[in-house]
Amino acid sequence: MPPTATIGILGAGQLGRMLALAGYPLGMRFRLLDPALDSPAGELAQQYAAPYDDEPTLTGFAEGLDLVTYEFENVPVAAARFLEALVPVYPPPAALAAAQDRLVEKTFFQRLGIPTPSFAAVDSYEDLERAVAEIGLPAVLKTRRMGYDGKGQAVVRAPEELRSAWQMLGGQGLILEGFVPFTRELSVLAVRGRDGATACYPLVENTHRGGILRRSVAPAPGLTPGLQALAEEYAARALDALGYIGVLAIELFEVEEQLLVNEMAPRVHNSGHWTIEGAATSQFENHLRAVAGLPLGSTAARGHAAMLNLIGTVPDVAPVLVLPECHLHLYGKEPRPGRKLGHITLRADDEATLLQRLAELEALVSG
Amino acid sequence: MPPTATIGILGAGQLGRMLALAGYPLGMRFRLLDPALDSPAGELAQQYAAPYDDEPTLTGFAEGLDLVTYEFENVPVAAARFLEALVPVYPPPAALAAAQDRLVEKTFFQRLGIPTPSFAAVDSYEDLERAVAEIGLPAVLKTRRMGYDGKGQAVVRAPEELRSAWQMLGGQGLILEGFVPFTRELSVLAVRGRDGATACYPLVENTHRGGILRRSVAPAPGLTPGLQALAEEYAARALDALGYIGVLAIELFEVEEQLLVNEMAPRVHNSGHWTIEGAATSQFENHLRAVAGLPLGSTAARGHAAMLNLIGTVPDVAPVLVLPECHLHLYGKEPRPGRKLGHITLRADDEATLLQRLAELEALVSG
Repeated sequence: MPPTATIGILGAGQLGRMLALAGYPLGMRFRLLDPALDSPAGELAQQYAAPYDDEPTLTGFAEGLDLVTYEFENVPVAAARFLEALVPVYPPPAALAAAQDRLVEKTFFQRLGIPTPSFAAVDSYEDLERAVAEIGLPAVLKTRRMGYDGKGQAVVRAPEELRSAWQMLGGQGLILEGFVPFTRELSVLAVRGRDGATACYPLVENTHRGGILRRSVAPAPGLTPGLQALAEEYAARALDALGYIGVLAIELFEVEEQLLVNEMAPRVHNSGHWTIEGAATSQFENHLRAVAGLPLGSTAARGHAAMLNLIGTVPDVAPVLVLPECHLHLYGKEPRPGRKLGHITLRADDEATLLQRLAELEALVSG
Repeated sequence: MPPTATIGILGAGQLGRMLALAGYPLGMRFRLLDPALDSPAGELAQQYAAPYDDEPTLTGFAEGLDLVTYEFENVPVAAARFLEALVPVYPPPAALAAAQDRLVEKTFFQRLGIPTPSFAAVDSYEDLERAVAEIGLPAVLKTRRMGYDGKGQAVVRAPEELRSAWQMLGGQGLILEGFVPFTRELSVLAVRGRDGATACYPLVENTHRGGILRRSVAPAPGLTPGLQALAEEYAARALDALGYIGVLAIELFEVEEQLLVNEMAPRVHNSGHWTIEGAATSQFENHLRAVAGLPLGSTAARGHAAMLNLIGTVPDVAPVLVLPECHLHLYGKEPRPGRKLGHITLRADDEATLLQRLAELEALVSG
């Protein structure tokens, strides 16, 4: 890769912003495609503000780029494939296709022998009744496509709730998933280079609120080498099966020392933001190193880190920045309820100190 | 400070680039003023490409800014003072004035009781002869103004070299400085907030080549608490005397466990680049926190770090990035002999590992 490689990014949100911030020091330049104006990444790189599926726009966008990547997994697969004829596109569009459809995704993991919650395709009310008979209740009915941050989901606890769940979501491809009585939610961030080398960050413990990631703690408290090895084994299987290049995030449920895959995101991920200060190499830098064909950087944690999302409102920053080893990341977005406006990372040498500071931080951050 | 403060930076070189990279996560926006096109910072923030001393330009530049700072100490003081009437300017223009003239600068430190090499003003050949009689030889004849990276200097080792040194530099304000048989060159990066709080990074050991900083090691090998305390005491005296706000770099000679001040730079500094990965808070973030009135971040080192400048050429980056905890920083500049094109930072938990990896890195980086 020449030191002045220009990388196209589909999407110009906060992930694109943090990719650009990580890539400039590597000598990279960026061109963004995102229909949204006033995008978080748009203030620090050239942006094409146009739809993802306009072929003349895509042709112009690709002109002179060394490669294209994405920060948003709901980019139309057809757009990624169209670009692939013009310029290398990493991760492979096949990974995008697999991640965009919960049924394809879970089938993919199942085929690799990686445990998932039980699941069944639901295209009709009769399918739904059959799926409930097979999987049992409680269960979660989800749209196969375009779900994120808990949207497009309905929990079904009793048979009499089937109708309302169907009325809410029916008429599109659905999947019923067995409700998992998990101990906790974890995620693993894995990266694979163009030479096939892979690396994983330590497992992260995630806490959601209202379907949106609220906080991550890394490494996950009480993480055992056995659990880490299991996650890395699953990640490696998925990366290799997809011929993946870049960072892949896999969300997991921990159930009695076993791991079930919930879903994957073929991109850098909110639960990996702690790596900016908390790991030897950030997920953003490692994604860029991977897609650019550079050697991967160390994924080792530097002590312990916690990440807290700022959702809907930004607190007064001065009291926050007084906390030791506290790092603010704002995305330049207008506040709006439920919107991810930024995050705060804490780092400490030991877990006890980290968790104590996290409690202090949480007292300062409402919302 | 509102989370969307817009900060003007005079200068759009690599220091401005790294300020912007550190400031976006704090929610800051940037506007740059620099007459040079294709500037390192210009690709990631709005740039006014105009001279520093054009008042209508300065008026337009200041419009809507929350404050102005600089990344280049040879900005005309008159321009900084003109801006100061429109918008807060930090560090104070008086610090700029003191740093731009070696005679004013050394007199300033002398007045504070801070040791410097012996020096004398030289405005004529007679002054030069008198200064040599007073200071002795060897000595260094320097221009009072606009010297950087070893430019505008002549070493005088014997009386017969006086004429040629005068012919090379005479006709402008000069200073003769006693040659210091130093053990090594050090620097201290200090920061002072708008509330008067100060903090210092650990002393750094610097190695120059051809007058240009080649490498820094932090903390300086063998650093004693006594030497650190002495540097912090000098820095605090200078910061308070100037009513300083922001990062101030002071270059020092270590001579028999004493410190002599060589010069200061009223800005972030090349010998502080290691702080991006090697300290809890980088010099860039702390400069921005200081000027924006935010609490300062911890200046503690995270283990040991070394910084190597890339001068004139950029090596093949892949073998470099294979080294553990190796971080590349390119400035987006066209290669040219003697030009600082980027730097590489290494971090390690202990000094022995750091120095071993530094030797490996130096074998990969020529020029």
